[in-house]
Amino acid sequence: MLVCEHASNVFPAPWGDLGLNQDQKCAHIAWDPGALGLARALSKHLDAVLVHAPVSRLVYDCNRAPDRPGAMPARSEIHDIPGNRLISATERGARTAAVYVPFHNGLHALIADRIALGLAPVIVTIHSFTKLYHGQPRAVEFGVIHDADDHLARAILSAAQSKTKLRSELNAPYSAADDVTHTLRLQATPYGLPNAMLEIRNDLIASPDAEQRMADMLAPVLNMGLVEIQKQAKAG
Amino acid sequence: MLVCEHASNVFPAPWGDLGLNQDQKCAHIAWDPGALGLARALSKHLDAVLVHAPVSRLVYDCNRAPDRPGAMPARSEIHDIPGNRLISATERGARTAAVYVPFHNGLHALIADRIALGLAPVIVTIHSFTKLYHGQPRAVEFGVIHDADDHLARAILSAAQSKTKLRSELNAPYSAADDVTHTLRLQATPYGLPNAMLEIRNDLIASPDAEQRMADMLAPVLNMGLVEIQKQAKAG
Repeated sequence: MLVCEHASNVFPAPWGDLGLNQDQKCAHIAWDPGALGLARALSKHLDAVLVHAPVSRLVYDCNRAPDRPGAMPARSEIHDIPGNRLISATERGARTAAVYVPFHNGLHALIADRIALGLAPVIVTIHSFTKLYHGQPRAVEFGVIHDADDHLARAILSAAQSKTKLRSELNAPYSAADDVTHTLRLQATPYGLPNAMLEIRNDLIASPDAEQRMADMLAPVLNMGLVEIQKQAKAG
Repeated sequence: MLVCEHASNVFPAPWGDLGLNQDQKCAHIAWDPGALGLARALSKHLDAVLVHAPVSRLVYDCNRAPDRPGAMPARSEIHDIPGNRLISATERGARTAAVYVPFHNGLHALIADRIALGLAPVIVTIHSFTKLYHGQPRAVEFGVIHDADDHLARAILSAAQSKTKLRSELNAPYSAADDVTHTLRLQATPYGLPNAMLEIRNDLIASPDAEQRMADMLAPVLNMGLVEIQKQAKAG
């Protein structure tokens, strides 16, 4: 199962553009550029269901719990988000009910169904990150982040390092300590499902063709990682 | 927030009575007798929202994940459950979608709303257990069970021991190792919410009056436990 919490840079009513200009609404602060296209192509390759958010993470970041400042951030990197500067408790509740709860309850229903059917779902979240952050370039191209259970993340990293030339690192460009694994903790950990978070540098998936090429490269990597953890499970 | 997963011994269509007789449908295998009445009385005392299951745990046990045998048990204590003997994957999926998913998604929506509003919800599940189990008497009267986070359970136990004459024990008559803390793991742990599972011996809550007396006794115990963990939180 693939999950893309930062798929969208749509700013629908009643929230509107939150006071952002057109450039800001297209920038990585609003979404993860390329992540949805990559996730869709991976979904086809792997015959995996894909769940993705329908609105910008600046309206509600579905990878953050409702009490975290990052759920409806007043500031992102170097940008103030005017429409998020003074959010009442009522407005926080309304956005949570409109975006966060349906996203996670919908994902939970799909996971519960697969578990009931005797399948053993695996949860992989798909993200992209920007090459420049606060003015500093990032060398890493492919990051694999784990939460409490690291075995799928390590298997994917190992596959990426042996099958691709991507500069691949564990827990880069950030880690669970930076509070980026909320979806994994909420949806995968309670059921003991294997899980990992993937981060692709967004200059490598900057066009539909590039998204497809990255999916062609990463699909066998994910398959190899899945085969490896199945082997480990059999070996007990 | 109070949760009562085993509140009901209703066997509605399309499942019907699963081949059970009237005695079995009223016995503790079908539900936790007294738990709902106690939970309702506690809910009034504490001004706490109460979420309870609408059907027998033999149709679906909302305190079990959909892949566990106990979710739709073919046998409970000494009783075979005929209607659960041969359940197809489709039927498991249908019961999960009809009972488990709405129960937990509804509870999750309430929790997320409270978190968004800046409240700090505490999750307490209310159960009852039978005095005789496989023919052996149980001496414990009040059990407080914890999952990963034990601080609320220990505070409640300590309050019960100082404020009541109930024979009170930690992790009795069973513990998280017996796979009885699914709701706590799914709903409280991902958000870091204080949580505990309470077990009351059902001969002590065998009538509406007895449920009310037990609630009158336990409400101050729960309040004392909550005050204690707030103190601990302030002390850091």
